[in-house]
Amino acid sequence: MLTEKLRKIFDAAGADALFVECDFLRRYLTGFYSTDGYVVLTKEACVYFADLRYFEAAERALKGSAVTVLEGSLEKALAYVKPYHTLGIPFPFVSVSAFKLLEREGHALQDCMPALRHSMLIKTEEELSRIRKACEIAEDAFNLLLPALKEGMTESEVAALLEYQMRRLGASGVSFETICAFGENGSVPHYETGDRKLRFGDPVLIDFGCKYGGYCSDITRTFLFGDDGKHEEFKRLHAEVLAAHTLFKERAEAGMTGREADEIARGHLRERGLAQYFTHSLGHGIGLQIHEYPTLSPRGEDVLQDGMVFSDEPGIYLAGKLGIRIEDSVYMQGGRVHSFMHKTDRGVLIL
Amino acid sequence: MLTEKLRKIFDAAGADALFVECDFLRRYLTGFYSTDGYVVLTKEACVYFADLRYFEAAERALKGSAVTVLEGSLEKALAYVKPYHTLGIPFPFVSVSAFKLLEREGHALQDCMPALRHSMLIKTEEELSRIRKACEIAEDAFNLLLPALKEGMTESEVAALLEYQMRRLGASGVSFETICAFGENGSVPHYETGDRKLRFGDPVLIDFGCKYGGYCSDITRTFLFGDDGKHEEFKRLHAEVLAAHTLFKERAEAGMTGREADEIARGHLRERGLAQYFTHSLGHGIGLQIHEYPTLSPRGEDVLQDGMVFSDEPGIYLAGKLGIRIEDSVYMQGGRVHSFMHKTDRGVLIL
Repeated sequence: MLTEKLRKIFDAAGADALFVECDFLRRYLTGFYSTDGYVVLTKEACVYFADLRYFEAAERALKGSAVTVLEGSLEKALAYVKPYHTLGIPFPFVSVSAFKLLEREGHALQDCMPALRHSMLIKTEEELSRIRKACEIAEDAFNLLLPALKEGMTESEVAALLEYQMRRLGASGVSFETICAFGENGSVPHYETGDRKLRFGDPVLIDFGCKYGGYCSDITRTFLFGDDGKHEEFKRLHAEVLAAHTLFKERAEAGMTGREADEIARGHLRERGLAQYFTHSLGHGIGLQIHEYPTLSPRGEDVLQDGMVFSDEPGIYLAGKLGIRIEDSVYMQGGRVHSFMHKTDRGVLIL
Repeated sequence: MLTEKLRKIFDAAGADALFVECDFLRRYLTGFYSTDGYVVLTKEACVYFADLRYFEAAERALKGSAVTVLEGSLEKALAYVKPYHTLGIPFPFVSVSAFKLLEREGHALQDCMPALRHSMLIKTEEELSRIRKACEIAEDAFNLLLPALKEGMTESEVAALLEYQMRRLGASGVSFETICAFGENGSVPHYETGDRKLRFGDPVLIDFGCKYGGYCSDITRTFLFGDDGKHEEFKRLHAEVLAAHTLFKERAEAGMTGREADEIARGHLRERGLAQYFTHSLGHGIGLQIHEYPTLSPRGEDVLQDGMVFSDEPGIYLAGKLGIRIEDSVYMQGGRVHSFMHKTDRGVLIL
């Protein structure tokens, strides 16, 4: 017997069977995680093919669930789906090699990602609670990090310490490579954390997150490591970014498109003559992957709905000079935006 | 002007142009890393398309190299390759969605992964030095971890501490999720690190690695956290795994297939009546990815050659009881196997 979630995905896909290799989608369908494996979803059953390395763990984890575990790898999974002519596979997460193999097996192939994406867009209570926990861990780790910052530490050391605290607090790992940028390095929106040493008066931009139960958190804070009195412009711009960030939270509503939502924050920066320095999207969906749907950008077509989780991350970047970004992971409920972040300062924190 | 490496890859691919989106392959071709971007390789030039987030960093990193940086994303990269009819794309690392998009653009598509793989199989001195550094960091971190182990620590805490030390020593991150298994949990070859607490007398299996300059290390050690006198079987089996591990290093030679190499270790365990407990391959290639070629397994067809890097990781698993794995990252030079690991014990270490 399929669960309602699995049945809906199966029906929406409109194929004879779904054949899924991609790891996070296997996790989404079954709740079980392994680096390798295959999930087959038919009208009657959801089967997890686990090889000898994972079979024991898969059986233990999925006992009593709607998912049947079978020992085997690609050959057995292919034999199992042989009678099903039309296979739904998630095109964005299937390699051309795998596609051609399934074609040679005689299957007609169609994209089941729209059906999966439609289901994944709206988070369940269980999913929300995992994201909430991932956010709490990130914020707690940040608060443990702040008093440990010292002049002379490198960006990498600071990132390492932050990641250690997240791991120690129960995260399974980072949700993406931590960005830790001191001083002028903050002006590169996706800066690669390096060896720059922390100096008194440095602005510090840290964009980070962790995974808990497979789900991601994403947060950015920009603050001052001491105030050397040369930060008038930084403080002025920081206030404008925070205003854009906050305005979005106050005004975004269910029913808006990602474009309309993005415009709330972008419009504020435009009014202040700063829109040209906001060089990326306002936000992206967050879930098992750090970048999911909806997309909140000038091109965002998704309509915001209750149960969606996304980032609110306006930023301003003056090349070679400074960068400011303020980001929360947020969710939509009762038609309004609510933040997962309640434990860290968003304003100009001065250490 | 292309470098010799790029020219050889281009010639071997036999396409009018190569079009590469996959991040680690972009890094391999150009030396520059970013999460998004496109690399186009033609007979005349290698072009990196970086969007605004990465353009500044890409220009700085690739100045004076054989790679030209252009600002732009997918649209510009597509316009650039428009005149080239046959595109080489790496089938195993291209999604069906991207494949269909390029088809709609009118290109004939062929797989350039064999050409890339052929080049990536043999590591340059620069690549070997990065892997060596990644291995040194992993071993140094392990040696810092051992004196910090205390009764009552969870598997996750131990993994967190080990990862912190690797990060602090200069690693950019882990090369895969650290496996830390206490006691009977070691019997699951790809155990998911959990909350089991460390007790006196526990066998401890830690399989871990880090990345340095994009390149991976991979190492496993199995040891005892104190000897409660109940470990006769553990010690006997540990010695057999170590014998298989060492025999491989002594006897493997350039010119052997992955199957023949695997059989050196597997044959030893078979002679001892233990082959059925060795449920995975002996080894896998290591490079920018944690699992590359060659494959050392009963099905391994690759011929071992100088410049290859791979793991030597025999193991024995008694379900629900114990697991032992001993793994080094090694390389082939002068026709023989040499280990990157010189700083940690492989024998039954008793803390």
